[in-house]
Amino acid sequence: MKDIKRNLTMLCDFYELTMANGYHNCGIKDKIVYFDVFYRDNPDNGGYAIAAGLEQVVEYINDLRFDGDDIAFLRSKGCFSEEFLEYLSNFKFTGDIWAIPEGTVVFPGEPLMIVRAPVIEAQFIETYVLMMINHQSLIATKASRITRAAKGRAVSEFGSRRAQGADAAILGARAAYIGGCGSTACTIADEVHGVPATGTMAHAWVQMFDTEYEAFKTYCEIYPNNATLLVDTYNVLESGVPNAIKAFKEVLLPKGITKCGVRLDSGDVTYLTKKIRKMLDDAGLTECRIVVSNSMDEYIIRELIRQGAEIDAFGVGERLITSKSDPVFGGVYKVCAIEEADGSIRPKIKISENVGKITTPHFKKIYRLRGRETGKAEADLICVWDEVVDDSKPIEIFDPEYTWKRKVIENYTATELLVPVFKNGEQVYELPTLDEIRNHCHEEIEGMWDEVRRFSNPHNYYVDLSQKLWDIKHSMIAEYRNKKAKN
Amino acid sequence: MKDIKRNLTMLCDFYELTMANGYHNCGIKDKIVYFDVFYRDNPDNGGYAIAAGLEQVVEYINDLRFDGDDIAFLRSKGCFSEEFLEYLSNFKFTGDIWAIPEGTVVFPGEPLMIVRAPVIEAQFIETYVLMMINHQSLIATKASRITRAAKGRAVSEFGSRRAQGADAAILGARAAYIGGCGSTACTIADEVHGVPATGTMAHAWVQMFDTEYEAFKTYCEIYPNNATLLVDTYNVLESGVPNAIKAFKEVLLPKGITKCGVRLDSGDVTYLTKKIRKMLDDAGLTECRIVVSNSMDEYIIRELIRQGAEIDAFGVGERLITSKSDPVFGGVYKVCAIEEADGSIRPKIKISENVGKITTPHFKKIYRLRGRETGKAEADLICVWDEVVDDSKPIEIFDPEYTWKRKVIENYTATELLVPVFKNGEQVYELPTLDEIRNHCHEEIEGMWDEVRRFSNPHNYYVDLSQKLWDIKHSMIAEYRNKKAKN
Repeated sequence: MKDIKRNLTMLCDFYELTMANGYHNCGIKDKIVYFDVFYRDNPDNGGYAIAAGLEQVVEYINDLRFDGDDIAFLRSKGCFSEEFLEYLSNFKFTGDIWAIPEGTVVFPGEPLMIVRAPVIEAQFIETYVLMMINHQSLIATKASRITRAAKGRAVSEFGSRRAQGADAAILGARAAYIGGCGSTACTIADEVHGVPATGTMAHAWVQMFDTEYEAFKTYCEIYPNNATLLVDTYNVLESGVPNAIKAFKEVLLPKGITKCGVRLDSGDVTYLTKKIRKMLDDAGLTECRIVVSNSMDEYIIRELIRQGAEIDAFGVGERLITSKSDPVFGGVYKVCAIEEADGSIRPKIKISENVGKITTPHFKKIYRLRGRETGKAEADLICVWDEVVDDSKPIEIFDPEYTWKRKVIENYTATELLVPVFKNGEQVYELPTLDEIRNHCHEEIEGMWDEVRRFSNPHNYYVDLSQKLWDIKHSMIAEYRNKKAKN
Repeated sequence: MKDIKRNLTMLCDFYELTMANGYHNCGIKDKIVYFDVFYRDNPDNGGYAIAAGLEQVVEYINDLRFDGDDIAFLRSKGCFSEEFLEYLSNFKFTGDIWAIPEGTVVFPGEPLMIVRAPVIEAQFIETYVLMMINHQSLIATKASRITRAAKGRAVSEFGSRRAQGADAAILGARAAYIGGCGSTACTIADEVHGVPATGTMAHAWVQMFDTEYEAFKTYCEIYPNNATLLVDTYNVLESGVPNAIKAFKEVLLPKGITKCGVRLDSGDVTYLTKKIRKMLDDAGLTECRIVVSNSMDEYIIRELIRQGAEIDAFGVGERLITSKSDPVFGGVYKVCAIEEADGSIRPKIKISENVGKITTPHFKKIYRLRGRETGKAEADLICVWDEVVDDSKPIEIFDPEYTWKRKVIENYTATELLVPVFKNGEQVYELPTLDEIRNHCHEEIEGMWDEVRRFSNPHNYYVDLSQKLWDIKHSMIAEYRNKKAKN
């Protein structure tokens, strides 16, 4: 497939570089640190999110390189030492990365990615890693919500013209496909990522001919096997649909073609699609599909279906490609541990007056516990890296805030969510194909209880800490409070 | 400056290509058409928007080219004729483009850009042109609102990690600078576009040392001339600020350096900054600046200032880089005229049942009328291309909907807003530098009445049609209604 990658090593917050120069110059550049990538709230107050963006993170890590122009530019800023610039000119990532594979259902508070590396390297990649995971997870999550609202009807991503730049269009189309869209309007997303691109006509096509009928007839003659006619340029019921029916009958039916479509991009969708369906059926065009495409999102789609609108497929634009109702996925990148000279791992915590912002310390692993009989996910358990869950035995989990809320889980499987992606700077993870990711996402959604998948007021899926991790976290908080009390 | 451009010719909605193949195969590919780019509503219910993105449109038009891979990919889709693919392999833009320069204040309903070209070319560029103008105009507009709320305090763009992809980060930083931000955290936006990049430290820096004081002292030693210390890793008032003061006194003051800063990224900003200001002043650090950076936007900034928060500068992240409160700029691309074989221009209109969606037909020009004495913009007048406004004479303008609302303007200048950018496919517009664009934007904002610049419930700036254009539009609507009545 075509490659449109650029080297974006310099896409970093400037403070990553000032800190890196600082670490370098004060002699702690080889200190090994652990960072977690995690997020705090699901978009749209939903019950889950879909992890996405890992493939582009892997490409970024493999391509990390400062070229001569970059070094010259940084020198011109006047704040970096020559030793540091020399170091940067040979910079590469030598650490380890674990991540939750793309397409996996994820929850607030659990690490989607863990980075273990010398402090400069681990710190440096923060901006790009967050950007990529935040963006694609946001769009994959929105696409999951929208396609689920469509209840099996096809959903196509149509939003390039309203995307926040080219990558938002291209990788947004990729993420939307992961989340469940079946196709995109974005041609280059097909060429580069293999997201099937489709599309038929704009209003301009209709306006370019003397009559609407002539526009439709010409289109059917050129694309007899893919004729979806846009019926709302003038008047949907009085001219658009009658002209479409006439063109289908005149051009397609004589060829024995019965599959065709009309698209509606404005107006009262429920009212119009019911009328359109009847007109098409009365004309014998029962296989003609009705596609709608104006300001769709999960809420409107759900409501249209509830009202009995006759819709076979949705085109979804700006509200998907920008995740308009909640356009920020708030992934953060926080230190969770430091490795001592003897190789022991010392957990680190960030205490905040805002309780929700206190981090969970230590190098971690995550188990997903699924009922053996239901196949449904019951809880995620975040453990210290050296813990092992034996899923042949019952396990008691508890709410990390309301610790009296406890639950014993039996007859379950425990699967680790984080997989090794880089080891000593070498990629050790084979990237799945986009279709594999999309299928994985579909299975993941199937593996969640309805209560978690609800759009509004979903059940809070359990993301609990192991007793060992909870103890470490709370002893660190207690230690901090004690120290503060003594001051 | 470094070049990270890619050829994004294939970033188009697939229907641009199916329509293009259709135009080609039905023999109307050389028909000359006019398209307008315009938008219908200002973001955030504001009174204006800032035009941006033209430079990237110019680069795109100059670079338009389908390579062998693209042609092979399109062939594989199985719906394009070989003659059309041959045509595409020699494709370039041969038409004319007029546009409102970047940084200009613009209003709903007026063409930000006009494209005149053979129908395939004019149609093909729709997706990319809209995407670029929509995205950058959105962010420039948001930045204008945010920096105006800051009332002269510096505003830095900090949002890369939450941007919707790399271009959203990079070109978002560019657009934010046009709209009034003074700097960015995005390093590559400096290297590639010259937006000044700045930054100091993250919480991770502080956590990397045994004590907060050691972290601050080390930083001051390395960057004595640019020491802005992040004071909320542990406890702002009990440890952060006292440790910062200690480090400043110990490291900076002996060197005679009095300029420094503290940054607050959490907590009750008004309360804390008042306390911090007093602590700094009491320590004699009156030149120490206070920077705040947590979830800022124009509404919060205005409120903080109203409450008397002691803030010298703002770092603005996700709410600017995604324009979170309104993340879509709804620019559209509509046919407005067709050229006949004899060269005459035939206006085209799109009638919609939704009155707000009826387009204004014809090849147009826009005059901005400014009071000679006030220097303030009074109205924009959209005219037919061959009209000339003589600003030595009074002019009567009228509301295009409520036509009895009329106003005579005297003692004004009339300036055309649209400038030629391409003529017969050749670039005829010299691109201004980014600083020129930013200065132009600043002057444009100065040239608007306060009533238009208000955040909420602003005065609706007059965007009127000339009598000639109004007559054409309404005779076309009447003709359509008559035709419909006869059917």
